[in-house]
Amino acid sequence: MIRTLADIPARLIATGRRYRYAVICGSDAGTLQAALRAVSAGFAEIQFFGHTDAVAAAVAAAGPLPEGSVSLIPAADDAEAARQAVSAVSHGRADVLMKGLIGTATMLRAVLDKQEGLLPSGGTLTHQAVAEWADYGKLLLCCDVAVIPFPTPQQRRVQVALAARTCRAMGIDTPRIALIHCSETASDKFPYTTDYAAIIAEAQRGDYGPCLVDGPLDLRTAIDAEALRTKGIESPLEGRADALIFPDIEAGNVFYKAITGMMHLRNACMMAGTTHPVVLPSRGDDADTKYNSMAMAALTLNRHA
Amino acid sequence: MIRTLADIPARLIATGRRYRYAVICGSDAGTLQAALRAVSAGFAEIQFFGHTDAVAAAVAAAGPLPEGSVSLIPAADDAEAARQAVSAVSHGRADVLMKGLIGTATMLRAVLDKQEGLLPSGGTLTHQAVAEWADYGKLLLCCDVAVIPFPTPQQRRVQVALAARTCRAMGIDTPRIALIHCSETASDKFPYTTDYAAIIAEAQRGDYGPCLVDGPLDLRTAIDAEALRTKGIESPLEGRADALIFPDIEAGNVFYKAITGMMHLRNACMMAGTTHPVVLPSRGDDADTKYNSMAMAALTLNRHA
Repeated sequence: MIRTLADIPARLIATGRRYRYAVICGSDAGTLQAALRAVSAGFAEIQFFGHTDAVAAAVAAAGPLPEGSVSLIPAADDAEAARQAVSAVSHGRADVLMKGLIGTATMLRAVLDKQEGLLPSGGTLTHQAVAEWADYGKLLLCCDVAVIPFPTPQQRRVQVALAARTCRAMGIDTPRIALIHCSETASDKFPYTTDYAAIIAEAQRGDYGPCLVDGPLDLRTAIDAEALRTKGIESPLEGRADALIFPDIEAGNVFYKAITGMMHLRNACMMAGTTHPVVLPSRGDDADTKYNSMAMAALTLNRHA
Repeated sequence: MIRTLADIPARLIATGRRYRYAVICGSDAGTLQAALRAVSAGFAEIQFFGHTDAVAAAVAAAGPLPEGSVSLIPAADDAEAARQAVSAVSHGRADVLMKGLIGTATMLRAVLDKQEGLLPSGGTLTHQAVAEWADYGKLLLCCDVAVIPFPTPQQRRVQVALAARTCRAMGIDTPRIALIHCSETASDKFPYTTDYAAIIAEAQRGDYGPCLVDGPLDLRTAIDAEALRTKGIESPLEGRADALIFPDIEAGNVFYKAITGMMHLRNACMMAGTTHPVVLPSRGDDADTKYNSMAMAALTLNRHA
């Protein structure tokens, strides 16, 4: 099982496969460093779309790389680079899309394009972040800290289904998924909590594949077995959640920024819900985070998850 | 200025005053220990309402205490103890109300009673937690992590006004108050963020007394000067907020449980918005937290804040 972020690229390397990444405007130092490290590690082939002069210089400076592991596709501008990269993914020439030094809006316009994009009609784009918290002894998946403001019942179900898939791709046979709320009691004051029981029932009948879903749980009872005992609450998750589904983006975002900004936990992030995983790092992400995010995205291509 | 939780009782002791606490059913070990410590420290007189046999035994075991610093008022049941304690406060015989081993609902029924309670008609009851985060070098006030689900515009204004007052009571002449959101951009998708500008304008014209209010700010840009610079954002708070106003209880609660449960930050809590401060500890609070919470509540009696 994967217990640390470093286990993720290690798992990919162990497969002996090379995953194909389409990187848009990958000319910033962090993206270049992450991409070339993935190439050197042997699990990545990179197609760089746009900003090819800067990329070519960095590739040359990197020294010898595995045969055919890097290709450069020039583009007239960033929007064109994004369109070409998305097209490479949607036509099966790449497995994972990744953002470099390009505006998020410009990139998302290509990803979400109704004709040529990567989001199926009626689909839901959602963010997944996986954090490494040493005290916990395993990774913790957080959904969604960045994209969906106030999930509709349908969007929350997509979040649960995709959380279960991503956890299974990380080697957890029966992921434990917590539906977070400020207490353990469903209430009409918080309409989404009254829907949690239906989601749990759907999980029990197998709608989301093998997984255990419980909620409402507060953050403590989701991830702290002792807090669960102190409160006298029974939960099939036993205070050992693998994934947290936050009630809204405000809660998810505050959590993510507390664990990264105050606790300095390392993490990896990706967008899910698209036909292929999309790596869309934050401005502040360092090369190591980008590298782990690239690995996380490729791991979710696992078809058995 | 107060920079640590320990500074709070130290400040009270320095006043030489004895603050009068009405404690309801204070027979649990944590409440007794906190209350008797406050008495021994010299800043507290305690009136124990209900559970007087158990309290009397603990008081006897504690050894000599300052003259007249403890009194015991028996009650037929917990609800009666709560009513008597609230009455002592509302009739000026005590300054602070505190919960012991009594159901929260039973206690709140007495506090919120329209005739005899402590909440003015049309008033707003809100929760304040102050956390000690060593890396930050000062205390951080969090509003509201426990009581108001989705603050109305009016409730948010009360939160801001009371946050400013509590910070001033802690010796901060011009408290920095951050209106939290998942980004720094107000948007119609998050209707409360479009109200933030009006609150800031009200603060500038002095509606909340001396204070600096800014938002929307995300958690990072509220409390991390470097994150602010990296994002290229100007804020009068300079990444040094004294108080965080969370958009909703879900965000506040997740933050509070992350900093207490994962980071193990120490904190003190109270209820504000009532005519007198109310100490209503969580089940899991230890004696030290209860002691600091008692001190925090008395400090907010400072009339100049």
